[in-house]
Amino acid sequence: MSITKYLEVTGSMKEENFSEWYNEILGKAEIMDVRYPVKGLYVWYPFGFALRKNVYGILRDLLDEKDHLEALFPLLIPKDEFMKEAEHIRGFEDEVYWVDRGGLDKLDVPLALRPTSETAMYPIFKLWVRSHADLPLKIYQVVNTFRHETKHTRPLIRLREITSFKEAHTVHATWEDAENQVKEAVKIYSKFFQSLAIPHTICKRPEWDKFPGADYTIAFDALMPDGKTLQVGTIHHLGTNFSKTFDIQYEDENGEQQYANQTCYGISERCIAALISIHGDDRGLILPPEVAPTQVVIIPIMFSDSSKEILKVCKKICSDLKNAKIRAVLDDSDGRPGSKYYKWELKGVPLRIEIGPRDIENKSAIIVRRDTSEKEKVPLEELLEQTESLLGTVLKNLQKNTKKSFKSNICVCKTLDQVKESIKVGIAKIAWCGNEDCARLIEEKADADILGESINEKGDSDCNCIVCGKGSEKITYVARTY
Amino acid sequence: MSITKYLEVTGSMKEENFSEWYNEILGKAEIMDVRYPVKGLYVWYPFGFALRKNVYGILRDLLDEKDHLEALFPLLIPKDEFMKEAEHIRGFEDEVYWVDRGGLDKLDVPLALRPTSETAMYPIFKLWVRSHADLPLKIYQVVNTFRHETKHTRPLIRLREITSFKEAHTVHATWEDAENQVKEAVKIYSKFFQSLAIPHTICKRPEWDKFPGADYTIAFDALMPDGKTLQVGTIHHLGTNFSKTFDIQYEDENGEQQYANQTCYGISERCIAALISIHGDDRGLILPPEVAPTQVVIIPIMFSDSSKEILKVCKKICSDLKNAKIRAVLDDSDGRPGSKYYKWELKGVPLRIEIGPRDIENKSAIIVRRDTSEKEKVPLEELLEQTESLLGTVLKNLQKNTKKSFKSNICVCKTLDQVKESIKVGIAKIAWCGNEDCARLIEEKADADILGESINEKGDSDCNCIVCGKGSEKITYVARTY
Repeated sequence: MSITKYLEVTGSMKEENFSEWYNEILGKAEIMDVRYPVKGLYVWYPFGFALRKNVYGILRDLLDEKDHLEALFPLLIPKDEFMKEAEHIRGFEDEVYWVDRGGLDKLDVPLALRPTSETAMYPIFKLWVRSHADLPLKIYQVVNTFRHETKHTRPLIRLREITSFKEAHTVHATWEDAENQVKEAVKIYSKFFQSLAIPHTICKRPEWDKFPGADYTIAFDALMPDGKTLQVGTIHHLGTNFSKTFDIQYEDENGEQQYANQTCYGISERCIAALISIHGDDRGLILPPEVAPTQVVIIPIMFSDSSKEILKVCKKICSDLKNAKIRAVLDDSDGRPGSKYYKWELKGVPLRIEIGPRDIENKSAIIVRRDTSEKEKVPLEELLEQTESLLGTVLKNLQKNTKKSFKSNICVCKTLDQVKESIKVGIAKIAWCGNEDCARLIEEKADADILGESINEKGDSDCNCIVCGKGSEKITYVARTY
Repeated sequence: MSITKYLEVTGSMKEENFSEWYNEILGKAEIMDVRYPVKGLYVWYPFGFALRKNVYGILRDLLDEKDHLEALFPLLIPKDEFMKEAEHIRGFEDEVYWVDRGGLDKLDVPLALRPTSETAMYPIFKLWVRSHADLPLKIYQVVNTFRHETKHTRPLIRLREITSFKEAHTVHATWEDAENQVKEAVKIYSKFFQSLAIPHTICKRPEWDKFPGADYTIAFDALMPDGKTLQVGTIHHLGTNFSKTFDIQYEDENGEQQYANQTCYGISERCIAALISIHGDDRGLILPPEVAPTQVVIIPIMFSDSSKEILKVCKKICSDLKNAKIRAVLDDSDGRPGSKYYKWELKGVPLRIEIGPRDIENKSAIIVRRDTSEKEKVPLEELLEQTESLLGTVLKNLQKNTKKSFKSNICVCKTLDQVKESIKVGIAKIAWCGNEDCARLIEEKADADILGESINEKGDSDCNCIVCGKGSEKITYVARTY
């Protein structure tokens, strides 16, 4: 059943069957083609790719601003390098793809497809880092990485080829320098998700859920419409764990060799899964203007006697908008206006400008907002200014609405029963003493995961662990997770 | 021995030992790090990556202008799809990497790492193409592809991971439509190499050297400083060969199903190998301004009594240039001007602006060109204008010089002995009847390859095949090749 049909018959498809809505919108809006003949591998349609390009453009700009340098390391990692860091390999050995053959020959050394690039980069970082003057080193790349997922795969969310892994890797002198880098990364990611209007929790993952080989892990989780959280970004303080394995040393100011401290942090196309899911509705995508491949569509409402004049005005508007660096498209294809509205709404275009014979007479146009469906009559001479202003308003409105909805789905819980109830629709906020036994009990009873301690909030001094009753000032989030 | 040392002792290292010069410049100018521990895999330094980004930016713009859409297809191709096109697989089976294991399990169906993406894309093209209204379909992607090279590998030239393969794939109704697309691709690639100031031949490859599965192949070859040609781009007319294998059919205007005609065309990071090799000298890179990561470096010549004033002026200049969208850098690091010149010359920065105490007094600056070493004194008030103008001049000068040198290394040959002599330094231009036996003889006797018939030139009507003497109006190029 199509999204629109579903709407007519049963109400909101997105709310009632999110999973079906998600699969349908990916295809209909031409984000991903799911028909590739291997499980967990998908094809980016040109429209989806254009969205990806804009989203990653924001991320690249934020990293570049903070002096990260983009580089590119090989996909294939020789087995001996890959196997060096014991904890790391334990974390990944179940899901690494191995290349054993090249042409008709067996390879002397099997090659791993990177599941992440620590073991590809760090042997080279050893060569790049010689002295304290080389630090900090801040490198990132945007690459494809691979995981042999045995669980149910899902486009943009659980993949065998993660096509768009932005991974940053930094090297510092001291543990404190690396911790400051973690803080910078938190700020960068916060700005990034803010610009996509994706609200999120920022938690320090519990010890047993950290990145294999990290001192600690901080994670960003977004709340999906089905009430489950999606991990959309992680930041790891690696301490000297990898530098000791890969012998990354620098000469300090006293001429002594020291092991470097490292961090790494990553974001994948899950950010686009969250973007689509959080903003979309039963008519299709709703995209923040910053990332929308098309920001404004102009649709002429043509009648035979005035069509020439209308088209002329539409072309002028389109070229004015383009000159003002707005990504505008004039849809002068055959077809009725209604079916054009349908098509461009599906693609999430933030603003639609309609111009018909009466508008020409009045020297005005109609602007329709995708996010609120509000219509506004605007004099032609103010059209550019008003369009620019509305594009800004749309983002602010999306940020406001998603934040409100996010907050309303976070529930403070004092008992396990409350947790069980809250996580049906959102995130439970609890006090937890930090003890693993208590955590296991929470996770089992509620059939949910501990996201970790919130890094930005503190509880009251009289909060007590929801299990053992021990005092705890730490705020902990619990949710069902992807 | 360093490039500069070599220069002092023996003359031009680039001319006398190109291979050594090439390897050294890649590392010293921080294009590629060759120390990755797997043969044929290399690391893009941040500087090299910035150059790559600019070069591929030009290529993307040219494709986008001609309505190509960027998409992204999976790296891994299931064996059964990969094995469908018999001629294609014969062309690649010796060099395909195979993934046989995922995690601790053997895969049911082995997965090939794409050596090129026909067999990944065309099963999906079958779904995307339904009717003549869907045509032409013009898709491209920029991806990593893999070849298990057994020959000597070389950074940017002969790789096991081609990190930057821009491959375009198009679908058309008729063979003629596809041929017109081939012509469009020739124009796009010609513009691309023109903008990099890389002269080239454009030849129709002989039958035995065409792409496996193509009706015919057109190739762009650049001339490297050692007199060997480097294939830097190829364009293939695929006819209906793949559409019949992958069942890509469209409904024509009469409602009948027809097999589609296809083309594909690719460019890899070899274009950057040619760029570096053709323009560089014994002091380092020389980059066309369009692709130079830094276009202008400003170097203050500081003395203690005037350094504050000099730095102030330099900062102002740098910010003026940046405002005019020029990629300018102020090098106010510690260190003597001489060592800064050395560093930025190595990186191929097109223009250097020097400002010392006397310049401040005169309200002027010195601009030094990397391509000619010419110095010019310019009043500060004309500095921006003059910088912009010189950046344009540099590209034109590079185009002029490389074209002249290229032409002077193409030699018309009437005998096999002349061919043998000419190809020591460049390309032999001959008449060849088109017969394979004659070609084999030429290739054997001269120990060289037939590049093919020039697509843009015709010989005189009285030209005769260099082997059998049969009349031929076709101009054929012969060279030693990479």
